[in-house]
Amino acid sequence: MSKGVCIISGGLDSCVVAYDMKKNLNLEMEYITFDYGQKHRKEIKYAEQIAKDLESKWTLLNINYHESVMKFSSLTGEKEVPEGYYAEENMRSTVVPNRNTIMLSMAWAYACTAKAILLGCGAHAGDHYIYPDCRPEYFYHLEQAFQLGTIGCRHDDLRLFVPLLNYEKCDVIKAGIELGIPFEKTWTCYKGLEEPCGKCGSCDERIRAFEKCGLKDPVEYANV
Amino acid sequence: MSKGVCIISGGLDSCVVAYDMKKNLNLEMEYITFDYGQKHRKEIKYAEQIAKDLESKWTLLNINYHESVMKFSSLTGEKEVPEGYYAEENMRSTVVPNRNTIMLSMAWAYACTAKAILLGCGAHAGDHYIYPDCRPEYFYHLEQAFQLGTIGCRHDDLRLFVPLLNYEKCDVIKAGIELGIPFEKTWTCYKGLEEPCGKCGSCDERIRAFEKCGLKDPVEYANV
Repeated sequence: MSKGVCIISGGLDSCVVAYDMKKNLNLEMEYITFDYGQKHRKEIKYAEQIAKDLESKWTLLNINYHESVMKFSSLTGEKEVPEGYYAEENMRSTVVPNRNTIMLSMAWAYACTAKAILLGCGAHAGDHYIYPDCRPEYFYHLEQAFQLGTIGCRHDDLRLFVPLLNYEKCDVIKAGIELGIPFEKTWTCYKGLEEPCGKCGSCDERIRAFEKCGLKDPVEYANV
Repeated sequence: MSKGVCIISGGLDSCVVAYDMKKNLNLEMEYITFDYGQKHRKEIKYAEQIAKDLESKWTLLNINYHESVMKFSSLTGEKEVPEGYYAEENMRSTVVPNRNTIMLSMAWAYACTAKAILLGCGAHAGDHYIYPDCRPEYFYHLEQAFQLGTIGCRHDDLRLFVPLLNYEKCDVIKAGIELGIPFEKTWTCYKGLEEPCGKCGSCDERIRAFEKCGLKDPVEYANV
């Protein structure tokens, strides 16, 4: 059986890719999650549980490596996580520079060692507005660089798998419904409190998307 | 004064780039070094000293993050570092999959945060044979991905600076001589012993290159 690796954050998007790869692609799956010093560390426990539910190996990789790089973002440093619409200018403070590239580089190395044929990632179209490292042209060049950079030390067919790249959040949710995903087992909020805040850009985007689909989000929010 | 960042390993190649950027480019320089669990950890002290000699800030970034990725290579895992000609098949065990991409991703993030305009790296043509992540086409796509992935969170002009990309080792040494580099202050050996072994691929390549230039390597080797 061929192997696959998928990065999961504990959030909704990567959970959809995790289920998709396990249920539809006939791969022996492994899941990996990154600790990058995020305030919403709670999502890590959610990620672990998703891998458990999918009866697959789960590995936590620590890249909380240096405050001089990570302090730049409100997701990891001392700044407050902003509230409001996900795609707005004030959400720029949640950008961790080159975060996806760092994670994907390590995940690609992991996938090389595992001799996997696919490396899955949950980037989706809703991210494009604010996170430049979620755009199609970025993934094209990244895959080229990864492939050129690892000739001879990976499965010859290793590819990036970013199936949600052109999905709006609402389409992601519909795909998740089809896969039978228990959405209460995903964590979306950027604040690491007891309940999701319902106010940060990430909660806001999720709530709007469920509303747009005409579906009920099974998660209970603190402020909604 | 514009800022520059350069990755230095403590070895000869990156030392040449370090001196070049400081002496010729009129940049306020910062140097960064990676701890990736290399057996030849001694090189880290050499890197620190190079930055000191250049009167610049030096930062050590730890990416010794997970044995499941790093154990694959003889440079970091339990396998023995091979001896012999640098470009030979048996040197393949020294490949750490995607190592340069991981380091460059983090260094790029660091350079974004520092608002630098150049990120220097010591890859040179002699590395192409064995390390696929040292080839020109790889750097082209990597820079594209890095630039696309960090729009809005870096100096607009940030570029990779890989001046030795088409230099053979012998040309690197000649460039170093012109810059007045004290080569005894660089560490090349893949084994972390008291003196450089003179037998591993990395020592072998250095010794051959000095011979080819008709120059004397100021370093004392254990076995030569």
